[in-house]
Amino acid sequence: MKYVYLFGDGKADGKADMKNLLGGKGANLAEMNLLGIPVPPGFTLTTEVCTEYYKNNKAFPESLAQEVKQSLSEVEKIMGKKFSDPDNPLLLSVRSGARQSMPGMMETVLNVGLTSNTIPGLIKKTNNPRFVYDAYRRLITMYSDVVMEKAAGIDPPEGQGIRQKLEHHLSSFKLEKNLKGDTDLTESDWINVINIFKKEIKLSLGSEFPDDAEAQLWGGVEAVFKSWNGARAISYRKIENIPEEWGTAVNVQTMVFGNTGEESATGVAFTRNPATGENKFFGEWLTNAQGEDVVAGLRTPNPLNEDTKTEDTKHLPSLQDTMPKIYSELFDIKNRLERHYSDMQDIEFTIEEGKLWMLQTRVGKRNGVAAIKMAVDMFNENMIDRETAILRVNPDQLDELLHPALDKASESTAAKLTKGLPAGPGGAKGRVVFTADDAEEWNNRGEKVILVREETSPEDVHGMHAAEAILTARGGMTSHAALVARGWGKCCIVGCNELNISVENKQLTVGEIVVKEGDWITMNGTLGVVYLDQLKLIPADPDKNLEYKELMKWADEIRKLKVRTNAESPEDAEQAIKFGAEGIGLCRTEHMFFDETRILAMRKMILSESDEARREAVMGLLPFQKEDFKGTLKAMEGKPVTIRLLDPPLHEFITLNDKQVTELAENIGVDVAKVNQRIASLHELNPMLGHRGCRLGIAYPVITEMQSRAILEATAELVMDGLNINPEIMIPLVGTVTEYIDQEKIVRNVASKVEEQYGISINYLVGTMIELPRACLTADEIAEHAEFFSFGTNDLTQTTYGFSRDDIGSFLPEYLDRNILPGDPFQSLDVKGVGKLVSMAVKYGRGKNSSLKIGICGEHGGDPSSILFCKQNGLDYVSCSPYRIPIARLAAAQSELI
Amino acid sequence: MKYVYLFGDGKADGKADMKNLLGGKGANLAEMNLLGIPVPPGFTLTTEVCTEYYKNNKAFPESLAQEVKQSLSEVEKIMGKKFSDPDNPLLLSVRSGARQSMPGMMETVLNVGLTSNTIPGLIKKTNNPRFVYDAYRRLITMYSDVVMEKAAGIDPPEGQGIRQKLEHHLSSFKLEKNLKGDTDLTESDWINVINIFKKEIKLSLGSEFPDDAEAQLWGGVEAVFKSWNGARAISYRKIENIPEEWGTAVNVQTMVFGNTGEESATGVAFTRNPATGENKFFGEWLTNAQGEDVVAGLRTPNPLNEDTKTEDTKHLPSLQDTMPKIYSELFDIKNRLERHYSDMQDIEFTIEEGKLWMLQTRVGKRNGVAAIKMAVDMFNENMIDRETAILRVNPDQLDELLHPALDKASESTAAKLTKGLPAGPGGAKGRVVFTADDAEEWNNRGEKVILVREETSPEDVHGMHAAEAILTARGGMTSHAALVARGWGKCCIVGCNELNISVENKQLTVGEIVVKEGDWITMNGTLGVVYLDQLKLIPADPDKNLEYKELMKWADEIRKLKVRTNAESPEDAEQAIKFGAEGIGLCRTEHMFFDETRILAMRKMILSESDEARREAVMGLLPFQKEDFKGTLKAMEGKPVTIRLLDPPLHEFITLNDKQVTELAENIGVDVAKVNQRIASLHELNPMLGHRGCRLGIAYPVITEMQSRAILEATAELVMDGLNINPEIMIPLVGTVTEYIDQEKIVRNVASKVEEQYGISINYLVGTMIELPRACLTADEIAEHAEFFSFGTNDLTQTTYGFSRDDIGSFLPEYLDRNILPGDPFQSLDVKGVGKLVSMAVKYGRGKNSSLKIGICGEHGGDPSSILFCKQNGLDYVSCSPYRIPIARLAAAQSELI
Repeated sequence: MKYVYLFGDGKADGKADMKNLLGGKGANLAEMNLLGIPVPPGFTLTTEVCTEYYKNNKAFPESLAQEVKQSLSEVEKIMGKKFSDPDNPLLLSVRSGARQSMPGMMETVLNVGLTSNTIPGLIKKTNNPRFVYDAYRRLITMYSDVVMEKAAGIDPPEGQGIRQKLEHHLSSFKLEKNLKGDTDLTESDWINVINIFKKEIKLSLGSEFPDDAEAQLWGGVEAVFKSWNGARAISYRKIENIPEEWGTAVNVQTMVFGNTGEESATGVAFTRNPATGENKFFGEWLTNAQGEDVVAGLRTPNPLNEDTKTEDTKHLPSLQDTMPKIYSELFDIKNRLERHYSDMQDIEFTIEEGKLWMLQTRVGKRNGVAAIKMAVDMFNENMIDRETAILRVNPDQLDELLHPALDKASESTAAKLTKGLPAGPGGAKGRVVFTADDAEEWNNRGEKVILVREETSPEDVHGMHAAEAILTARGGMTSHAALVARGWGKCCIVGCNELNISVENKQLTVGEIVVKEGDWITMNGTLGVVYLDQLKLIPADPDKNLEYKELMKWADEIRKLKVRTNAESPEDAEQAIKFGAEGIGLCRTEHMFFDETRILAMRKMILSESDEARREAVMGLLPFQKEDFKGTLKAMEGKPVTIRLLDPPLHEFITLNDKQVTELAENIGVDVAKVNQRIASLHELNPMLGHRGCRLGIAYPVITEMQSRAILEATAELVMDGLNINPEIMIPLVGTVTEYIDQEKIVRNVASKVEEQYGISINYLVGTMIELPRACLTADEIAEHAEFFSFGTNDLTQTTYGFSRDDIGSFLPEYLDRNILPGDPFQSLDVKGVGKLVSMAVKYGRGKNSSLKIGICGEHGGDPSSILFCKQNGLDYVSCSPYRIPIARLAAAQSELI
Repeated sequence: MKYVYLFGDGKADGKADMKNLLGGKGANLAEMNLLGIPVPPGFTLTTEVCTEYYKNNKAFPESLAQEVKQSLSEVEKIMGKKFSDPDNPLLLSVRSGARQSMPGMMETVLNVGLTSNTIPGLIKKTNNPRFVYDAYRRLITMYSDVVMEKAAGIDPPEGQGIRQKLEHHLSSFKLEKNLKGDTDLTESDWINVINIFKKEIKLSLGSEFPDDAEAQLWGGVEAVFKSWNGARAISYRKIENIPEEWGTAVNVQTMVFGNTGEESATGVAFTRNPATGENKFFGEWLTNAQGEDVVAGLRTPNPLNEDTKTEDTKHLPSLQDTMPKIYSELFDIKNRLERHYSDMQDIEFTIEEGKLWMLQTRVGKRNGVAAIKMAVDMFNENMIDRETAILRVNPDQLDELLHPALDKASESTAAKLTKGLPAGPGGAKGRVVFTADDAEEWNNRGEKVILVREETSPEDVHGMHAAEAILTARGGMTSHAALVARGWGKCCIVGCNELNISVENKQLTVGEIVVKEGDWITMNGTLGVVYLDQLKLIPADPDKNLEYKELMKWADEIRKLKVRTNAESPEDAEQAIKFGAEGIGLCRTEHMFFDETRILAMRKMILSESDEARREAVMGLLPFQKEDFKGTLKAMEGKPVTIRLLDPPLHEFITLNDKQVTELAENIGVDVAKVNQRIASLHELNPMLGHRGCRLGIAYPVITEMQSRAILEATAELVMDGLNINPEIMIPLVGTVTEYIDQEKIVRNVASKVEEQYGISINYLVGTMIELPRACLTADEIAEHAEFFSFGTNDLTQTTYGFSRDDIGSFLPEYLDRNILPGDPFQSLDVKGVGKLVSMAVKYGRGKNSSLKIGICGEHGGDPSSILFCKQNGLDYVSCSPYRIPIARLAAAQSELI
């Protein structure tokens, strides 16, 4: 087993594709060497050392010391210096480097090798004692913190560690001596400070700072390996789903210094602009500085070149201007790296006494707009093919283009009010109101409002529509508020447990903060953060983005999975078609009943005691429903439209206060007591598992009859007008084939009658929503009758896990925090559990009925990883809210390429 | 294809094991012929004729007429009579006969062949014109009803059919002529009546009564086949799960008459007493009568023999006494039949002019007590082996022995109040009370009470315990009331939708009937019927039944499946051991918290805001829990005891009224507003899918810690006393292996500490309840950690179907009525859906962990067909309520033999 990989002087044991063994940094350092790019020589201790270290109870493999010794001597040869050498000492850096970048999560030790033995020689060689002592005190500070304090088993309270103590001594020293900056300290000042540091270390940590280069090196190496299991690294790994087994590599590399004088400098750069995607070399640099100075923000960094100067930076010196030869060398390296890696690179460099050294290259992070532009540009520049371009953009990044966003700068300084679940992406601001009616009223008089509710119900829909955004104290990612808001592309945050809402007093409180009706708040629905006051918003306009349009065209050419939308009005349908919808996958019908003129008929139906009275009430809804469906079917002409029959429990239609009960009783001529009794009789302990879905249509066949008739008459009339209309009637919540057969029969009977009545033949399908485990388990039986399946993975997730999406807020956050769940299963389909049922249902269903049309209409239809799952399982289409359609189209294309 | 099977004169084309083809009646008629028993000759049209008839749009197979003709001529030869012959005419009966008996569900036509052509000859031959005309009017009545009215497509309103019209004419005629009984009519009276009948038929049905023997025969045959799809037959088939495809056979048989004079008679008999099982020939007979007269109850039938005369019947003539030779022939036939079929037979016979004819033999129905006695007796008589004896008793019949029962006679005349779901079997009577406190109070002063509630909650448990029986308006077969009642073997009826309960007014109403507090009611929990007033009860005492004890001994020797009990107190455990429990499969722990002294600590815990306060409150419960567990573990010494950690949502512990809130707030020194706020925050829309099960233990690890400690310390202390104690700690509602791992770790940590503390090693297991679809789907992952699985099929059924067992009452009855569900899936495990998940979980679980112990602790653990499923799927044990244990033991034995 080889544990140490050497690189330097144009040669390397490793290369770019050995990231798993060498970590990202180590692999790329090797690769740059092989490309002939100047890199300070060094060597990488592999991730396997880390794994072995932990496996063997924190002991290194036996052969490691020998391999390190040998590699070190190679480095010494290249550099013509020697580690621990009193005359011409080699200094080393010790850095972590995992497979996947974990910025700032692990430890680093620089300037390793400075001891009482090597300092005089280095002073002599550099003729710069201040630089040497400065480097030494940095080593002492870093090493005592990273290595010694941890080795001593001390876990100091926040802000009381050895590093802070030493920094405090330095401040006191400067104050005492009236010195302003670090640069004002003389050689002897530094010697004094260093002595104080060493005393404090002995006092606090109980041991001497090691005056032995070898000890420093091994201390540093072990500290980096240990930091793989530090608290920060563990929690980061959980968030990013990085397995513990991966381990980190350690890179030991020759120190180069950008702070030895005016001929030295350091900088970071991107090969293209990571915020816009523009193909312009973009970066920042500082003379006489170390890398951390650029990042730390203590000194304002300079722009890299003339091209990227702005109003704010035009007076600053560029590297292009200051060191033209070096800039040209760097520019050339940038081009080679980008061409070599065929992707935008994030690079670090240091110039030591006029010599350029590259310290790092890696694929650069970018935002959505930039990702799209780079992908399309690089295709046009013949750097990548179309497929690669498609894969370069994370579908979720498209959200940036589709929703208004908060201005990052104004967000960074804003006052946070609270945090919740990010249910509807984008930014929004508005004045707080607490009822749906108020939202509508304020909106009507031209106010922008945010509707704040404990939780929303279908009766709030008009107010939700009028609001800029919706904020709720309860509910999860698929609660009513979340579903409705996403359907409209509206900003929404739910499950803000901290909110205390008083509708009576028209105010909300979070701890001591009080927000009254009319106060402004701003919401970041992508992150789930609520701010006080108004922040700046950046509007969305994807159609102006030509690269976006190009990329989506490619995606559509590549993908085979169809993308439909969940929509329930002509307006939604039209919006969805603009986003590229190829049909409706889920048209809910219940919201249509909440209009004032209709809900009365619905309530009459619920209160009817005889079949005749019920029939009369329900049939009164026929003309309304027919008009509803006509509009939506027409908007989707030529495309399939799946309409789900009534699904929610009846009590949702008669949530009434006393006054409303009295009015209703008067209105329909029934006793108040009878109304109350009926309301009470509809109460359910677990409505999610109650009398809803097809169970309603079975108890009240007239509902199914009326809805089928409305759909089919609407279709017939549009067909008579010469349109191509394709309704797909979906029976909800089927758990047994007998339920399906019962309801299908009603639909088919109505269809024959309507066909006869209009004298035409209607092109329609009857199928079912697969949203219960039992439907999946008996999909073979159901498929013998149904023409299509549409997976309702929201409810399927609820029943498979036994999670109520309305109540999950009380434990889901902790489940995610503690990694009991890897993610919210309502956002991304749980492949192991729910997915197994979906796979079974597809297999059983197609086994009996090979022409079965299969789609998904749950929230997962707009989630990229779930879309990949759908593709792998042979689904025909996914359906999602209009604002997720572009994301689904891109994800569907990617699913063909993965 | 042979469609007609002849029998007669000691020969037959068919035999007993051809029931599928010939129906039960036809197969046994053939078999009796082969045994040399006198049977009127005839022939059977097979069930395949029926199937073909419906397949070919109600047309008979072509060859049928020819086959019937040929068989008829064989019958004519045997009888020396001819069908349609004017001198010596043969009369026929036409009867249905399906594979499985469907008593009274299909049609029969007797006396076929009487026409104007044959009547004079028959009169001459019998010299009994009254008998002939009586037979003719019976033919006309039956035929016009069964054949002609249906053929005319007339579906008259209830009570206005042709049969009623004819009967009405006969009554009018008798009234007019002042005649009392049918026997008072003279020959010419009958001729008049017959003419009136024929006119009415022509008028009502539009056609003449057929005067052609051949036409009568085919009309009768077709009517019987048609009656296979009559409304009565269809609904009976649904209830009994008889497939439509089976079809019925038709038996055409020579008529023999028990009503030709004093030398003729008819009777029905059982080879042993079907009510007691006694080996005594038992039956009833009448001279000069037809079979229907014995059944109809117009004449009091006579006892068959001296042996079975009672106080009420000792004055009546027995067949043994009246016709000793024929009785002896019949007695001999009875013995041959019972020995031949090795089971108790239900037989019909007719004596025509001194000649005995057997008309039917079939296995006789019997009650539970009789079934047990016959099975054991027949084994002792060397008629059957032990295995057959075991299979002879339907396990559910044991219920009769285990619970007090209502006296059948007093029940048949009682006033029904209402009907509900039969949740706890047996009978009970008591005075109505409406609160748990009242139940306890009344019981304390010696009153027998029945607790009537809208639905019960854990807080009602003390009142439920004090009551004779429990009656609720809501809930299903596995609601709280049902579960608790069955656990105690207590009579219980739930889901009585008709009940309107007013706790304030202390009364309930059903329609106009009012029952006040203190009024007596009686309940039949086996059928779900509630009666007004007090009825007679017959107490249960199984231990006195020696045959029962013998049979159970055999069952225990044969079965391999273990039977445990669900019990949560030492008393329950002791009761269960008496019934044969081999351990506890489910010991719930939540009820232990409802005691007044404990619930306060529980509420403190819920209201605690800091971890320390919560720990203090929970740890306050430790001594109580430890005592609880100690008692139960001790009672089950040497047997495994599965204890489930806290499962219900916390809000169940703080369902409080305003006064209670104030008291609680004072008691623990917290603001009333804070208490109310916490209560509100615990409210869940779907508590079944909410923050419960292991989700509680994950949020509040101290609960798991306390409960584990209580179990393990109790165990340790008993072990120190020299007892053999085997607790199995069960983590509820696991959906992901991560949840299991989290909780298991707490249990194991506590275990090591307790073992160290007591210096002993504890023999315990940790496992989980498999009650969510996701647990089944990922059982492989869970089995890598868990030592046992216990299927909680109640919750698994809820989530697989998406049925809330608390709310199912609103649609389940209709689902069962309309055969959308074949049965209540909470009573008998749904093999197709839930069963598939169970099978998967067993396969996945054992695949990873071959020593995994697997049981079931849902309600299905006491259901015979579910027990068979458990056996077939390799489970180690079932667990059920104490009163189901004997049933489970027998069912488990049968599962080895099926």
